[in-house]
Amino acid sequence: MEELPDLAATVRELLDRHAITDLIYTYCFHFDNNEPDRIAALFTDDVVLDYGPDRSPIHGRAEAERRLARGLREVFAATSHNVSNVRLRFDGTDSCEGVTYLFAWHRYHDGAPDGYLWARYHHHFRRTLGGWRIAWLQLRVLGTVDFHSPEVYPVQRA
Amino acid sequence: MEELPDLAATVRELLDRHAITDLIYTYCFHFDNNEPDRIAALFTDDVVLDYGPDRSPIHGRAEAERRLARGLREVFAATSHNVSNVRLRFDGTDSCEGVTYLFAWHRYHDGAPDGYLWARYHHHFRRTLGGWRIAWLQLRVLGTVDFHSPEVYPVQRA
Amino acid sequence: MEELPDLAATVRELLDRHAITDLIYTYCFHFDNNEPDRIAALFTDDVVLDYGPDRSPIHGRAEAERRLARGLREVFAATSHNVSNVRLRFDGTDSCEGVTYLFAWHRYHDGAPDGYLWARYHHHFRRTLGGWRIAWLQLRVLGTVDFHSPEVYPVQRA
Repeated sequence: MEELPDLAATVRELLDRHAITDLIYTYCFHFDNNEPDRIAALFTDDVVLDYGPDRSPIHGRAEAERRLARGLREVFAATSHNVSNVRLRFDGTDSCEGVTYLFAWHRYHDGAPDGYLWARYHHHFRRTLGGWRIAWLQLRVLGTVDFHSPEVYPVQRA
Repeated sequence: MEELPDLAATVRELLDRHAITDLIYTYCFHFDNNEPDRIAALFTDDVVLDYGPDRSPIHGRAEAERRLARGLREVFAATSHNVSNVRLRFDGTDSCEGVTYLFAWHRYHDGAPDGYLWARYHHHFRRTLGGWRIAWLQLRVLGTVDFHSPEVYPVQRA
Repeated sequence: MEELPDLAATVRELLDRHAITDLIYTYCFHFDNNEPDRIAALFTDDVVLDYGPDRSPIHGRAEAERRLARGLREVFAATSHNVSNVRLRFDGTDSCEGVTYLFAWHRYHDGAPDGYLWARYHHHFRRTLGGWRIAWLQLRVLGTVDFHSPEVYPVQRA
């Protein structure tokens, strides 16, 4: 078997994979708890969030907290963001790209039928002095049932 | 980059994370196979399982096996327990708390519509001579569709 | 605490676990993108794929690409393959068995209702000169709703 070139560097990357995966799960946890301030704490100052073509991208942590708070309060009575298939690719030691599967269930305040979403998060992550943060997020959609957003970025099948 | 303070301790914790995650998946595997004796083998002797406010908590491995066996035999024709978003926090080297997402599908013997559950497992894990075991479990519910339990511990949105 | 017998070997196995888990996710990614050539690149030359008793097993990478291409093109308008509960057991350093949960959503070209599948992938993985590959896959089914395959290998509950 081949030698591991640098054991410490290998372990450090495994730890970074764990930390970034935990960051994604923490986002889901606070989303489903309706805690926009805690979600915003997971972003870089200059984060860009692009949830779909039917709304303008969110720029910066303060706008993120404000706009997420409104959606979480006005639209959703309950949600569950189940993330799986986490794939990460490092670009140097302090930057990482991710593609992650999302199965999300939504119950709405207005009594509309529950909305189901099968999608992918495309992420950029950046290591900051406070640890790994989400620097960019785009939601690309595989399919929906009774979902509230009229327009999405569809995954293009070949 | 910072130094890893102790490489061996870091690797040991990564292994413990793997072992505990595998323990949760093993519980799901045997649950969906209707193997209550194998589920019970994953618990500490003094395990406490708290599946909801509509039933008394289960105390100890023997009661766990007996009560799980009854539910698995009498209620469910088939189930799937899909766990994701596994988050673990160690408390010393031999104790760990976990919060994990569950998407569970249930088909019932009585012909009721399939039941869907979006929930979180809150776990305490303990290292024993035989390895990591589940010492405590509480199920907290994000949402349900046609679920058989009339009462649950709801996740409180802020 | 016990000593780790060989730190480098332990780290190498953690890396292998990561590589194999990523392999499964890559399969899902290209399946949902309708990229049969990229799926086939994940298989060993002599791969065997056994998706159910209603069709003959697929033998070899070339047949895999051809038959997957037909299904992906003719049957599915969109799919999402959400994998979780990944469990791996090594058999030596270059061979591994896996059992993994699948929640799959399917939208059909023919306008049939969306199909839902709760299942397990049983896998054999083999280390090749090009890295880990899928050598064998069998799909065993926990339950379905409106699924297109009339016959499946059912998980036998005890």
